Amino acid sequence: MNTLFTNANILTPQGVVRGCLGVADDRIAFVGELPQDFLVERSIDCEGGLLLPGLVNAHTHLSMTLFRNAADDMELSAWLQDRIWPLEDQLDAEACYYGALLALAEGIRGGTTAFNDMYFFEESVARAVAESGVRAVIARSVVTGADGGKSRVEEARQLYLDYNGAEDDRIHVAIAPHAEYTCSEETLIACEKLAHSLGARIHIHLSETYQEHEECKLRHQLTPAAYLASLGMLGEETLLAHCVHCDADDAALLGAAKATVLHCPQSNLKLGSGIAPVMPLLAHGVNIALGTDGAASNNNLDMFEELRLAATLHKGVTMNPKAVNAKTALQMATENGARALGWQSGRLQEGYLADVVLVDTNIPSMQPVNDLTAAAAYSASAGDVLLTMANGRILYERGEYYTLDIERILANAARIKDRLGL
Amino acid sequence: MNTLFTNANILTPQGVVRGCLGVADDRIAFVGELPQDFLVERSIDCEGGLLLPGLVNAHTHLSMTLFRNAADDMELSAWLQDRIWPLEDQLDAEACYYGALLALAEGIRGGTTAFNDMYFFEESVARAVAESGVRAVIARSVVTGADGGKSRVEEARQLYLDYNGAEDDRIHVAIAPHAEYTCSEETLIACEKLAHSLGARIHIHLSETYQEHEECKLRHQLTPAAYLASLGMLGEETLLAHCVHCDADDAALLGAAKATVLHCPQSNLKLGSGIAPVMPLLAHGVNIALGTDGAASNNNLDMFEELRLAATLHKGVTMNPKAVNAKTALQMATENGARALGWQSGRLQEGYLADVVLVDTNIPSMQPVNDLTAAAAYSASAGDVLLTMANGRILYERGEYYTLDIERILANAARIKDRLGL
Repeated sequence: MNTLFTNANILTPQGVVRGCLGVADDRIAFVGELPQDFLVERSIDCEGGLLLPGLVNAHTHLSMTLFRNAADDMELSAWLQDRIWPLEDQLDAEACYYGALLALAEGIRGGTTAFNDMYFFEESVARAVAESGVRAVIARSVVTGADGGKSRVEEARQLYLDYNGAEDDRIHVAIAPHAEYTCSEETLIACEKLAHSLGARIHIHLSETYQEHEECKLRHQLTPAAYLASLGMLGEETLLAHCVHCDADDAALLGAAKATVLHCPQSNLKLGSGIAPVMPLLAHGVNIALGTDGAASNNNLDMFEELRLAATLHKGVTMNPKAVNAKTALQMATENGARALGWQSGRLQEGYLADVVLVDTNIPSMQPVNDLTAAAAYSASAGDVLLTMANGRILYERGEYYTLDIERILANAARIKDRLGL
Repeated sequence: MNTLFTNANILTPQGVVRGCLGVADDRIAFVGELPQDFLVERSIDCEGGLLLPGLVNAHTHLSMTLFRNAADDMELSAWLQDRIWPLEDQLDAEACYYGALLALAEGIRGGTTAFNDMYFFEESVARAVAESGVRAVIARSVVTGADGGKSRVEEARQLYLDYNGAEDDRIHVAIAPHAEYTCSEETLIACEKLAHSLGARIHIHLSETYQEHEECKLRHQLTPAAYLASLGMLGEETLLAHCVHCDADDAALLGAAKATVLHCPQSNLKLGSGIAPVMPLLAHGVNIALGTDGAASNNNLDMFEELRLAATLHKGVTMNPKAVNAKTALQMATENGARALGWQSGRLQEGYLADVVLVDTNIPSMQPVNDLTAAAAYSASAGDVLLTMANGRILYERGEYYTLDIERILANAARIKDRLGL
């Protein structure tokens, strides 16, 4: 299927280009002038709207949408132990399937085309991803349980063998030891060996809270980042969620390792975890992508909010209005995430995978039109998205979902919420 | 006109009530059960949606929407001197009229029913407010110019005489010395005397940037808050925008004076001003309301963003997930602002003025429904607003404006933007 977007403002790596964007099958065929030989099967008039690369939610727990607004304004330990963990104990394959579908529906409606998930019942998540049409890295969360983590590491291996590269490569599988503080050294090493042998990415929580960061230093005389490095776990394929309490040495270590930090500013604020040291991380050349985290700690999956917060929060913290400019924040929300997750996507550029979002500019909050890069970072919202395309296929357009039955998803999510006793 | 909202979840001061809300003329007639004698002229099925009090944007410069996304990621001095001030020099009555209409259209669409404005050409703003149907406090910004501020103080007096209480009391007029650093002591005293003689509110910027705060200390051996106190300018009718750099003594002073702080978290982050000490201010009993500031430093007027940021930012800064809970943040965005601006509004409660907003809950980002107070603070967005009523009159409903010609406003704002050379 060939799709032509006309009358658009196109956010390219070189700036905003006015004109057309053509999609042939799953790739961007051209940006700018319509070539004479481009066969148009469907033409979409953007009416001056803004075409962005699909946003990449680089750290989330999709099925946690079921717990949205069910545990707020609580101490972190009470939040986890009294609310989240007991709820998670009740989850099953059906719950995670509908929870993931709900999350994907929300993401698609808000211009997100790729997700990096770590949770349970990932076969259910794979099924939801397959149906929805988005891209996702899925991963079975591994903690050291009764059997020293062996069964979960084996589940992670099987998930990789069953799903990595599935659905026309829309699904990738990562190995996800949950965190330093929930995995024994044996489990971490087993995960590293597995990831290495498969050529898989590692997805792990790192230094999210002050307490876990300090306790690791007591346990190992190393920060969590240095400890992972000592186990050979830091590299270009390592995706580190949060990194709120990483120090200057950690930042240098992550930069040298070419690791990716998955920055979740809203979740870190809301849970009282703190504010990640994004400026030192950037100074050390760390690749930074953005995530919402789960809906129980956010409480939505609106990537425009994360993008705006990444662009404004560090200006405020450092009292420097030039910190993290609009372009940098947009790269964090798009190409940095796409690259880290392993797709040639996240840019509106010829040859890239066609993950494309159309944002309405003919609305009061986007008018008058001045700098559209700034508008994307500072003015736009999930609700302004008119159309979402992933892998060359339109998934959502002006209120209508093309791959998902939204009424069925909402009804089932409500039913499962009741079943969970919420 | 009597309006009945049915099948609603109603956010009251006592929590969320399921049922009906009735509006008779400009007041809320009842909340909960429909009385037998209530004459229904129009009935609106809320389909389980959430009724909130209209949001109050307690500090903004409405006409600055014209400069949206025209000056970003810049040093504050360059932002002001090289971009904003030269643009402001070109403003005229027509520009400020359409700029204000654009801002009001954006606010109404996002559930904001009251505004606190400080700028130029306030007769134009008054006209826009009158037409739109919202409430606003308007104020002529006073700085010490060539004549020592005399002409502007006189303009402020005339504005009060012409407009205070106008439009069925939807328009109030405040006296607005711009800031300590832009007004001489003589000008500040003249403003204080004028406000006192008229019984008007004072609206002023205070300690927005580190530089102005420190320079005031050098000039007067007093912080800006203590300096205003020394001039007799701090009281229940004093509205202080920003207060980013207020210290512990300032917080105590503001609390004792029963002053209101107009907290603008997003603008303070974006301009690199810093983060206001909201926890000490709350501890001293200071009334805190929320504002977006102008669209040139935000870059939208979405009060749900300010509400969410107020609820999350201070949790992160203090590493306390119980700081500024959802209910407190909602009060800042509604009743605290309404009270400070002088209307019996901001609560869904019998006898209060009928400023009412309907938020869609049948959308992925608000589902499943758990705690709706948390949903309003953490999940909802301006784009989720289905209906906005101010003073008992519906201004916006499902994409349609009832008081504003949105096409005309957008076209004129674009024309004036071009005229300004943007």
